[in-house]
Amino acid sequence: MELSNAKGVSDIPPEKKIIKQKIIDQIKEIFERFGYSPLETPIIERYDILASKYAGGSEILKETFKLTDQGGRDLCLRYDLTVPMCRFVGMNKTLKYPFKRYQIGEVFRDGPIKVGRLREFWQCDVDIVGTKSMMADAEFVVIARQVFNKLGLDVNILVNNRKILNGMLTYSGINKEEQENVILTIDKLAKIGVEGVREELIEKQVSTDSTNQILEILFNNKGSNSEKLDYLFGILEDEGKEGIEEMRELLGFAEANFDFSLARGLSYYTGTVYEVYLKDLEIFNSAIAAGGRYDKMIGNFLESSEVIPAIGISFGLEPISVVMENKEKVKKTVTEYYLIPINTEKETFMLAQELREKGLRVDMDFKKRGVSKNLDYANSYGIPYVVFVGKQELEQGKLKLRNMETGEEKLVTKKELGERS
Amino acid sequence: MELSNAKGVSDIPPEKKIIKQKIIDQIKEIFERFGYSPLETPIIERYDILASKYAGGSEILKETFKLTDQGGRDLCLRYDLTVPMCRFVGMNKTLKYPFKRYQIGEVFRDGPIKVGRLREFWQCDVDIVGTKSMMADAEFVVIARQVFNKLGLDVNILVNNRKILNGMLTYSGINKEEQENVILTIDKLAKIGVEGVREELIEKQVSTDSTNQILEILFNNKGSNSEKLDYLFGILEDEGKEGIEEMRELLGFAEANFDFSLARGLSYYTGTVYEVYLKDLEIFNSAIAAGGRYDKMIGNFLESSEVIPAIGISFGLEPISVVMENKEKVKKTVTEYYLIPINTEKETFMLAQELREKGLRVDMDFKKRGVSKNLDYANSYGIPYVVFVGKQELEQGKLKLRNMETGEEKLVTKKELGERS
Repeated sequence: MELSNAKGVSDIPPEKKIIKQKIIDQIKEIFERFGYSPLETPIIERYDILASKYAGGSEILKETFKLTDQGGRDLCLRYDLTVPMCRFVGMNKTLKYPFKRYQIGEVFRDGPIKVGRLREFWQCDVDIVGTKSMMADAEFVVIARQVFNKLGLDVNILVNNRKILNGMLTYSGINKEEQENVILTIDKLAKIGVEGVREELIEKQVSTDSTNQILEILFNNKGSNSEKLDYLFGILEDEGKEGIEEMRELLGFAEANFDFSLARGLSYYTGTVYEVYLKDLEIFNSAIAAGGRYDKMIGNFLESSEVIPAIGISFGLEPISVVMENKEKVKKTVTEYYLIPINTEKETFMLAQELREKGLRVDMDFKKRGVSKNLDYANSYGIPYVVFVGKQELEQGKLKLRNMETGEEKLVTKKELGERS
Repeated sequence: MELSNAKGVSDIPPEKKIIKQKIIDQIKEIFERFGYSPLETPIIERYDILASKYAGGSEILKETFKLTDQGGRDLCLRYDLTVPMCRFVGMNKTLKYPFKRYQIGEVFRDGPIKVGRLREFWQCDVDIVGTKSMMADAEFVVIARQVFNKLGLDVNILVNNRKILNGMLTYSGINKEEQENVILTIDKLAKIGVEGVREELIEKQVSTDSTNQILEILFNNKGSNSEKLDYLFGILEDEGKEGIEEMRELLGFAEANFDFSLARGLSYYTGTVYEVYLKDLEIFNSAIAAGGRYDKMIGNFLESSEVIPAIGISFGLEPISVVMENKEKVKKTVTEYYLIPINTEKETFMLAQELREKGLRVDMDFKKRGVSKNLDYANSYGIPYVVFVGKQELEQGKLKLRNMETGEEKLVTKKELGERS
């Protein structure tokens, strides 16, 4: 039998999973400090729920893995964590708002396979349901800042507001019905440049006047946040001005870079949108976190007349993992100390327990291999320290500790070893 | 649209997920102290690999969720974490043995739904591949002991050895070919009692002499470990004696209760088997962890002539969660401190960051609700402390801290609050 993974999925071996797990733990710690609690929804969902008109939309549905159970029920694998959260909110009518939850787990898309695009990947979502306050919008900027600080990554947090975008388009003579479509083009500005945007807008039959107006506005997307806001305040009306006020409020609470070309492709956003990039785009040039406010989606999805405002941000675990793998020292094992018994199996087995109880990560040789084979083994896993447990040293309460990087060896007491945790 | 989960799966709301996550974290910490590193394999596997003759067997295959991708490939959802580990080992020929890995995640079985049996559930597996040493067998006893110590659960760790069982059956006149089938009956001893075992053995056409002999041996399954081992040593030969020697070696390294009626249903075990029960069976009377040695499975699965010995133990996350939910104080949120701004939104927003940076889990009111509505909100989530942030107190560097359980209020400084983490 030829062994392989299913197409489009892959194993995460220990050297990568150790880094991924550390990222998850650090992200979780930040989420929890901000009062977000973990929620788990199943991977398997009813197909009709994920296929609902106000759920992920028809494009994503084409990429949804379908299956049936023995009872012939139509099921599928979740394609995101947002729609299941909406279902959970709808099923739990007694939830008190604001409801703050995070969820980290696998999602599935049966799409074309490209580099960096897997059919099974992780999402790392944090959302607040039930508040329109701009403090919530600011909170996710602070969360993003703290997550990337914790990870030691230097990032650029971009914010915009859909109301500002809509206002810009109204000012440029674009009808309400056309705005969504034009926003999809503006979203590509960074990728296709001004001329690319111009061409695509003309293809989309936007008038030359409107196109020129839009590009003129985007030309002014420079300078400080307040310069940009003042410029827009001078030209926008109604919805646009409302967006500017929201942005000013947000920026009063948290530092971010206002960028009014930022659109985010998804149509369900209603206010603030975020994208986070590494400052050094040469390392990775796509967004590593993104999100925004979606005040209408939950109510629509639940077919409720009630408006249930919500906002959240999602961290891209795979891109962040790739960046961290190149930045951190890759470890093939969690083991810090590898004990080599020299005719002291029993004593070494007990010593290992003692050291573990003190918090050290300890492994030992079970195979009665010679010293050089054992050193090879420790080396192949990159274990930083080896401890030789000899009868004579043990009687004197000593152990020989070898630093595998420098080769330096010294005698230490059990107590000294235990205190290294 | 009627909202519900798919049949046989369920949401884990925050009050349960907080406990589940804590259990996972504690189990992981123990695994890592013993030098086991995390491995992640995908949820989606190729169907032909999971359907391999030496994988999970035909019974489990009937319960396997199948799906296809857009390319028409036959895929399925993993039904356990062991077969994917075998695939990983087979695909990574340069792995150095012993290879120590753990994996924690969802597995899927499209089986009949009973209380406590879900179609999507978690496994929590730790295994060592590539050593026959009985120290490995002892290590899992120590790991189980430390996991349940950490969780504060009083457990009974039972061990047996398939070689002893086989020896008992040989001594009782059961042919090699019949032994597996008879072991399946002995495995039910605790459930159906001596008379139940007698009836089932007679149904299986085991002779009266053999049945009586087996029951006589099982009657002697009492007293201390060494009494039991001495008794068996007096009657068993060859394979049985080998099992006794292995058991003596294991018990020389770790404390456990030798129980020679313990069989474990699965046919792939070749030596040591484990089951862990709560001492108080009234709380939960099924095994909460179980495992054993499977020295032939990986080689068979990989269609290799090489023997690749392996042993591991699996912790039942769902039963352990149920036990812990009844034992621990259930929390509906991770939040410890809920800040109520009294016309101090901006200052409170900043104060919240400060306290979070000190490690506290802090939430605040975004909705400008009155004090009593805010207290209701904090109460409904069971948040233990509320902090009133008033202008006047803030100017004096003070905050009013309310213990929500006792109702006690006192003035504290920011520094005092920060030090509570």
